[in-house]
Amino acid sequence: MQQHEEMKRKKAMMEVQDAEIREKLKGFKNKLIVMSGKGGVGKSTIAAYLSVGLARKGFGVGLMDVDLHGPSIPRLLGLKGNITSSAESNKAIPLKYLPNMEVMSIESLLGDKDTATIWRGPLKIGVIKQFIADIAWSNSDYLIIDCPPGTGDEPLTIAQVIPDTKAIIVTTPQEISLADVRKSINFCHQVNMQILGLIENGSGLTCPHCGKTIDLFKTGGGMVTAKKAGLRLLGSLPLEPDIVLEGDNGTVEWMDKGDLPYTRNFNKIIDSVADLTKS
Amino acid sequence: MQQHEEMKRKKAMMEVQDAEIREKLKGFKNKLIVMSGKGGVGKSTIAAYLSVGLARKGFGVGLMDVDLHGPSIPRLLGLKGNITSSAESNKAIPLKYLPNMEVMSIESLLGDKDTATIWRGPLKIGVIKQFIADIAWSNSDYLIIDCPPGTGDEPLTIAQVIPDTKAIIVTTPQEISLADVRKSINFCHQVNMQILGLIENGSGLTCPHCGKTIDLFKTGGGMVTAKKAGLRLLGSLPLEPDIVLEGDNGTVEWMDKGDLPYTRNFNKIIDSVADLTKS
Repeated sequence: MQQHEEMKRKKAMMEVQDAEIREKLKGFKNKLIVMSGKGGVGKSTIAAYLSVGLARKGFGVGLMDVDLHGPSIPRLLGLKGNITSSAESNKAIPLKYLPNMEVMSIESLLGDKDTATIWRGPLKIGVIKQFIADIAWSNSDYLIIDCPPGTGDEPLTIAQVIPDTKAIIVTTPQEISLADVRKSINFCHQVNMQILGLIENGSGLTCPHCGKTIDLFKTGGGMVTAKKAGLRLLGSLPLEPDIVLEGDNGTVEWMDKGDLPYTRNFNKIIDSVADLTKS
Repeated sequence: MQQHEEMKRKKAMMEVQDAEIREKLKGFKNKLIVMSGKGGVGKSTIAAYLSVGLARKGFGVGLMDVDLHGPSIPRLLGLKGNITSSAESNKAIPLKYLPNMEVMSIESLLGDKDTATIWRGPLKIGVIKQFIADIAWSNSDYLIIDCPPGTGDEPLTIAQVIPDTKAIIVTTPQEISLADVRKSINFCHQVNMQILGLIENGSGLTCPHCGKTIDLFKTGGGMVTAKKAGLRLLGSLPLEPDIVLEGDNGTVEWMDKGDLPYTRNFNKIIDSVADLTKS
């Protein structure tokens, strides 16, 4: 009997949370999940810079880092503070990167940044739900979600909790990455998630010494994969040692260097995303 | 009452499986798990090539790919066949890459390679256990496990099921990757897993046109991290467009090119691992 009461209580709590999630999600006009089949293709970098780019264009942006194992958004953006909670609303307050851009990451909740949090699947689902329900997000134009690679608990939870999310899939051009990206495309079809488009990252490198092109991870594979799957290629981004360095330092100085090929191509991606999501 | 019987039956089955796992594991002299904090640092490539390298030295090797979301071992080794099962033993037969090297990957169990398998956490644990209990592994010197990045269900399951596994941790030299590798080191400490050493991958690139060095992901970060954590650096591997190409093609021709810096450094790693694990 006691067990039955306990279950009833849990169920009621979950219903309250689900209602809160639905309410919170109404505050975002667009929800975009940045995903990849394979790790290390620059997914977090793209999620972070896309958010900053849209915020700089004047849109309100919430950036949610659900890569619980390797949360890299705070470092990429140089956000050192910790999440605090609001006394009045009983909600946690996301970090402000810009007046119109808020960030939530598990990294900003942990004291010791080098501690490994061992995440069993069901725990992850709970955390992701809390990231929506228990955060004092401002209403805004975009909720951008940085999802860990693969097709596991995290993207599935997002698909279930935020049914109108659209996916941006990031890949590098080499075949071993494209094989995994085809799995991501398939995943989106399985869970009925609309795909906004593909981004090819790490596409060609210009030698800073002689200026010649090195196709470290090949080029063009993203375009071929997009075409075959009937998807839009949102853009291709070259490998750029300065961008790697800026990522480590948490700076975005490249955004003001309009003559850099990386910047030029990234700006096109930001414009495309804004254009494809305008209502 | 019926529920009670069902639970008893399940418990008995799990005990049989656990006994089978213990028995199977006795067949391997050394168990090594190749892990990384961040994806895309070349973990699978290193697990595959380390296995081939040890097999070429005459050791018996079993290579187990537990990266269920992005299993890349079969492609890296050009293994196209599917896993079959043995009629007599009721066990699945791993693929043979060399007479003394066997490979098991979820990729080789699936018909359509582009299908996304959605893996909830508890399911993963079951598959990993089956990969040991239900496979007709030959007794051999090494069981090498390619584990997905992060500190989730997969490495935790390995730590629990194979308590004498030693870890090889792979990282690239940039800070954003090192931050995650410190989490992996911490994870090993938490679960009492011995760390054999660190490998720095993607350390410097030589321009194929002008021969000058490009530090795309910086260099030396692996060494610094290893020193700080009191760990051995097993070696540093440069970025090498030819290796990326060979990975896509499933060939290992580089292994016969002893003058390549990548080959030279990889051979040293193989020697170190053999040396550190000899009984």
